[in-house]
Amino acid sequence: MEKKFNKVVLAYSGGLDTSIIIAWLKENYGCEVIAVAADVGQKDELEGLEQKALNTGADKFYCLDLKHDFVYDFIFPAIKANAKYEDKYLLGTSLARPIIGKKLVEIAKKEGADAICHGCTGKGNDQVRFELAIKAFAPDMPIIAPWRVWDIKSRDDEIDYAEARKIPLKINRETNYSKDKNLWHLSHEGLDLENPANEPKYDEILELGVSPEKAPDTPTYITITFEKGIPVALNGEKMDGVALIEKLNEIGGANGIGIIDMVENRLVGMKSRGVYETPGGTILYKAHADLEEITLDKYTQHFKQKVSLELADILYNGYWYSPLTEAINAFVDKTQENVNGDVKLKLYKGNIMEAGMTSPTTLYSEQTASFGEDDDYNQADSAGFINLYGLPIKMIAKAKEHKL
Amino acid sequence: MEKKFNKVVLAYSGGLDTSIIIAWLKENYGCEVIAVAADVGQKDELEGLEQKALNTGADKFYCLDLKHDFVYDFIFPAIKANAKYEDKYLLGTSLARPIIGKKLVEIAKKEGADAICHGCTGKGNDQVRFELAIKAFAPDMPIIAPWRVWDIKSRDDEIDYAEARKIPLKINRETNYSKDKNLWHLSHEGLDLENPANEPKYDEILELGVSPEKAPDTPTYITITFEKGIPVALNGEKMDGVALIEKLNEIGGANGIGIIDMVENRLVGMKSRGVYETPGGTILYKAHADLEEITLDKYTQHFKQKVSLELADILYNGYWYSPLTEAINAFVDKTQENVNGDVKLKLYKGNIMEAGMTSPTTLYSEQTASFGEDDDYNQADSAGFINLYGLPIKMIAKAKEHKL
Amino acid sequence: MEKKFNKVVLAYSGGLDTSIIIAWLKENYGCEVIAVAADVGQKDELEGLEQKALNTGADKFYCLDLKHDFVYDFIFPAIKANAKYEDKYLLGTSLARPIIGKKLVEIAKKEGADAICHGCTGKGNDQVRFELAIKAFAPDMPIIAPWRVWDIKSRDDEIDYAEARKIPLKINRETNYSKDKNLWHLSHEGLDLENPANEPKYDEILELGVSPEKAPDTPTYITITFEKGIPVALNGEKMDGVALIEKLNEIGGANGIGIIDMVENRLVGMKSRGVYETPGGTILYKAHADLEEITLDKYTQHFKQKVSLELADILYNGYWYSPLTEAINAFVDKTQENVNGDVKLKLYKGNIMEAGMTSPTTLYSEQTASFGEDDDYNQADSAGFINLYGLPIKMIAKAKEHKL
Amino acid sequence: MEKKFNKVVLAYSGGLDTSIIIAWLKENYGCEVIAVAADVGQKDELEGLEQKALNTGADKFYCLDLKHDFVYDFIFPAIKANAKYEDKYLLGTSLARPIIGKKLVEIAKKEGADAICHGCTGKGNDQVRFELAIKAFAPDMPIIAPWRVWDIKSRDDEIDYAEARKIPLKINRETNYSKDKNLWHLSHEGLDLENPANEPKYDEILELGVSPEKAPDTPTYITITFEKGIPVALNGEKMDGVALIEKLNEIGGANGIGIIDMVENRLVGMKSRGVYETPGGTILYKAHADLEEITLDKYTQHFKQKVSLELADILYNGYWYSPLTEAINAFVDKTQENVNGDVKLKLYKGNIMEAGMTSPTTLYSEQTASFGEDDDYNQADSAGFINLYGLPIKMIAKAKEHKL
Repeated sequence: MEKKFNKVVLAYSGGLDTSIIIAWLKENYGCEVIAVAADVGQKDELEGLEQKALNTGADKFYCLDLKHDFVYDFIFPAIKANAKYEDKYLLGTSLARPIIGKKLVEIAKKEGADAICHGCTGKGNDQVRFELAIKAFAPDMPIIAPWRVWDIKSRDDEIDYAEARKIPLKINRETNYSKDKNLWHLSHEGLDLENPANEPKYDEILELGVSPEKAPDTPTYITITFEKGIPVALNGEKMDGVALIEKLNEIGGANGIGIIDMVENRLVGMKSRGVYETPGGTILYKAHADLEEITLDKYTQHFKQKVSLELADILYNGYWYSPLTEAINAFVDKTQENVNGDVKLKLYKGNIMEAGMTSPTTLYSEQTASFGEDDDYNQADSAGFINLYGLPIKMIAKAKEHKL
Repeated sequence: MEKKFNKVVLAYSGGLDTSIIIAWLKENYGCEVIAVAADVGQKDELEGLEQKALNTGADKFYCLDLKHDFVYDFIFPAIKANAKYEDKYLLGTSLARPIIGKKLVEIAKKEGADAICHGCTGKGNDQVRFELAIKAFAPDMPIIAPWRVWDIKSRDDEIDYAEARKIPLKINRETNYSKDKNLWHLSHEGLDLENPANEPKYDEILELGVSPEKAPDTPTYITITFEKGIPVALNGEKMDGVALIEKLNEIGGANGIGIIDMVENRLVGMKSRGVYETPGGTILYKAHADLEEITLDKYTQHFKQKVSLELADILYNGYWYSPLTEAINAFVDKTQENVNGDVKLKLYKGNIMEAGMTSPTTLYSEQTASFGEDDDYNQADSAGFINLYGLPIKMIAKAKEHKL
Repeated sequence: MEKKFNKVVLAYSGGLDTSIIIAWLKENYGCEVIAVAADVGQKDELEGLEQKALNTGADKFYCLDLKHDFVYDFIFPAIKANAKYEDKYLLGTSLARPIIGKKLVEIAKKEGADAICHGCTGKGNDQVRFELAIKAFAPDMPIIAPWRVWDIKSRDDEIDYAEARKIPLKINRETNYSKDKNLWHLSHEGLDLENPANEPKYDEILELGVSPEKAPDTPTYITITFEKGIPVALNGEKMDGVALIEKLNEIGGANGIGIIDMVENRLVGMKSRGVYETPGGTILYKAHADLEEITLDKYTQHFKQKVSLELADILYNGYWYSPLTEAINAFVDKTQENVNGDVKLKLYKGNIMEAGMTSPTTLYSEQTASFGEDDDYNQADSAGFINLYGLPIKMIAKAKEHKL
Repeated sequence: MEKKFNKVVLAYSGGLDTSIIIAWLKENYGCEVIAVAADVGQKDELEGLEQKALNTGADKFYCLDLKHDFVYDFIFPAIKANAKYEDKYLLGTSLARPIIGKKLVEIAKKEGADAICHGCTGKGNDQVRFELAIKAFAPDMPIIAPWRVWDIKSRDDEIDYAEARKIPLKINRETNYSKDKNLWHLSHEGLDLENPANEPKYDEILELGVSPEKAPDTPTYITITFEKGIPVALNGEKMDGVALIEKLNEIGGANGIGIIDMVENRLVGMKSRGVYETPGGTILYKAHADLEEITLDKYTQHFKQKVSLELADILYNGYWYSPLTEAINAFVDKTQENVNGDVKLKLYKGNIMEAGMTSPTTLYSEQTASFGEDDDYNQADSAGFINLYGLPIKMIAKAKEHKL
């Protein structure tokens, strides 16, 4: 190790990786280690974390409750933008990383730490997301990424390392899917999923809900209320965003909703395959997009599709704390001023079916939609419209006939 | 009527509209009427059509089998491009209109007709789609659109008109959903659907299949084989495109797949609500998009998303016979050269779940996707990547700190 | 005329068209006519307008000074967005129309008028721009567009009409280019320009300045200061936007700057050819775009290029008063927060050459740009960057070699 | 050096960098060095190169004439696409790199070399462009980039290194602008240009032509003929692409044309400032874009603007040998089928002014462009067009008034 550090802030999860990193940091840098856990809704994974951190050598422990900010500053903007990466992925992991990165800097500054460490693999996106967030708030802060530099190459190596140092861990040599859990989603990678030819073993994989086959035989109806593009009530009951998502995860999961199987393009260049569970998120995205159908005008709706693609890339790539994000969010927020109303959905064995929606700010006119008579639309106008709209096609045809 | 016509080609469906149009044309122009029906897979609607046309006054009748061209020249390009209008609509009606328009011109030229007539309403998209196709091949051909000019304003008016002239029709004064059917889809508009607050009465509406609730309790697995982006086999059996879609409609319909409920923006300016049944199409789009995940590289995949949006608009708007379509198809076809392989899907009560895929031209590397060691990817490279990728963010941060 | 109107607000310019329209409106509707002139900087064209309007039959006359709003609400947003239609046209006419349309509605409401009339041709864009603005503020207001309905077909017809009615006009039967003038630009269409094969006769055409050949042999240096993307000072002197543009028109015009010759695609479907003089505007666009080079980060700069294209279309098409415009302006304004600084330019015989720029919020780092040593950039990082950035290309190559 | 190589192919220019790299390679790897020079039109820089290479230690020398391929496979596609990086840069260096990279692989394979070496700095784009091209054809070929690994940090270090080893070079310790020259352009970076506040000293910088001030006082008229988007003749004389560009460089340079001063965003993350001379290229881009105004329809023209932005990024970033490039070129080539005709331009002291154009495949209709009567356009149609085009705006307005 060329550089020396006195105090290092570690993004700590309590898993095998970050547990042995505490020892590795101390061994290599002789530094104090401040373990920082971020509560973004991963629930049981947080239990007993402080004790674990201290037992495995951390000098200090923080657990930051980021759930509210995660929902209001990240999840809701993603819903408003309808941002999906590669048309499928609801960005569960991506959304949580920037805020954690930002908080690590805050703790590092408060503690006078001289480096930040994370346990992300060198083959994944999360290292980028963490580090870009860190650069955005501490551009010269050294970052330590053990997986990119140490000799440990596998889970077995890690366990050997821990045992050799008598790091007190309940160790299980059986491998498992690589997971990332938060309020918004749970992801699964690795093992048999690494071959795209394999059908996912959902019975073993799913944790946030059940597969469609195991969902109830009767549908569940729900109604979600939006104000300016943000979900504010479920079945008429006003709810805080965190509670709303937790409730929808429960309902959606029970109905087999929000299971995604995809091969995606990581920012760092390779394709990887993952299974995502996002029960509440899938419902919210759908409800919101439906409501936009009656509350956004055509031109806004169409251009917003292109902006969505850009925001999805930004989010996936961890480019969140940037002027472009701010500008895109300003665009999106403006479009959402009219996105108000109630969306009723029928949940049934993996399906989310529209069951009617209303909006106090609807742009839908039943009179004009209908094929009957109309005060606002004169059918004879269509002839002129078509003639002008089709003029370029007519001119091309006449040019071919040498009539221009 | 200011102009006079001797012979008019009529796009004929055998419904109430085009039946009375025959009489109306003769009454107003004293012209011969050539009724032209296009077989784009609407099946039973075609039965007895010739007799009906002649009985109601047509001087001549054509029925053109356009199914093959419809599939290979329109549906397959749409699948290859993944073109969805407003993220939902698989363009069922839009895809069929241009080819019919083109064929009307061919018949008109062959017959020496001096005008073409269609029965589309003045509030819909189809008038545009027909007329742009006509302009592309006969830029100066007069077009007669009775709904934009006559005094008939409703179904009742039509029936009165027919009865007054003793036009021999089996007339039913009960209204029904307005439908459009072809090999690719069946659409439903009107009645209670005109209010977006109403949940669709699927038991009354669905014709191509059943609702998820009524689908079987056991899943159906299928495998679709693609060559250069085109589906060529089902469950290992090579099939012609028409037969393949018919078969998938049957399987998909039985499993409650491909039901869409949306409010869309018509080209002519208003929002309208429709229910679409596209069982086979929904399966094909999904299978194709999945296969692209492992056969297209990231940059092609991402830019193609934007091209898709453009092609969807072109198709929806009837701008098909245009230089832009040709150029976009050239782009898409080039991207599809590598899109080969087998996609296995599990169909279950409205769900289409990925069940594994393989490709002889895959770009997916299990070794590189895995978090383990790798000949093609050196984790240490990530540090450099992140530093350069994040350099703009670092510079912004340093500028804020006045360190540039 | 099927409808009756009592009081009509007329967009009045004092030209031949709007002069005879006063008579035509009275003759056809027996209505009061309120002539409304909008001062958007056309200067001498406004002289004696009130007398002229009243002499030719108007019942009331308004002249609204819209210069300030034109600059701050339309021109500056266009500069900030770098909106150019078809890569050339700085939108001179387009930018002025919406605000006039909006003001016509305000006068119509104040006066209790029951229709609004404009003198735009049925072949141009301005009819659309006016009418969309009117619809945005008075969706049910009847609009009268005489050129689309009357029998007058040419300038000669107009003169005959005026002479027959003894309308007191200084009439000149010689035709001239069709022009539109305002603070931002002067456009020329018609006559020999209608054939794109003809070189424009600039000696006869140019009014706001001279051709490059006639410009001085010595260059003029100027410095423009921007704050949040808006030009606020010239050569260090703070100036109001209207005065700044007037001054730049003078300087730019004298130096042969801002002459554009193009064939553009009108919204109403045909191609048309025009010559535009936009001396000050051309300087401002260039200065602003240059400054963005050092004050916007790469990702914002690149995505903003796409947003610019959209805003240019919106502006050209008269879709200004719309939710999409508001959202795009919110995006653009956010990007401009960092666009501050001084841009020095050398103007010489039609050329605008960069002569150095500085910004208190620059993102440019001389140290990092230089090929020498650097605290913020480690050259060794490039290897990792290239390996990851090029990974998709490597994988494609390996797939071709069947090594995946 | 961890790896050992026996034979290394070196991209050789004969400059100081690649001269000492020969010695450095031999010293560090004990390998044979094959020096490969690529003739992409840099003329005098190629003189005596073989002798120089052998004198400074190369074991073998190749000089490949790539001018024809450079023009037809890179420059012409860029012109057809109208690809400009960040709206200014005509991609002079970017276009030449991929083909050189590809040829290096060909020589390496032919010679059985086990590595490829280039002399690009670790802070620039060219390292990426070379290496991506190499990866595309030899995904596992080791690449040696001395500037990223050796201890030499400056020109002075290089000279010391050369003198210590008695490498026979005509050495000049005075620094100069960093240049890149080829048939298409000449770029200048470094020294006083590194501060964007400095006005370029064009008298010292320019080599391909003169500044506008020094250009002749009388204009030069030229006519360029295009076939399918490719320039094929100058002033009526058919010319090969290489000769045509050389001739236009001469004419353009003499008239002070094609000087660009910009701060651009490098792919590797920083902003850098350069001055580019592209006299012939600037003329060709303008002539081609002008011709598209009358030969492309509106929708193709508008969407092509977006495709151009993408291709410019691809070219700049060296992502040329990729499926996306192939697909985009297929798109562009399709659009160019109609781009035929003659463009006359007036060159005068830095200005390129349109002087008339004609096309056998024009889409421009003088009749329809004119405001007079017209067989193809009925002004009354505009009313219908505006009503439908403006319907969303009307609906938004009515929604605000609670009238929907």
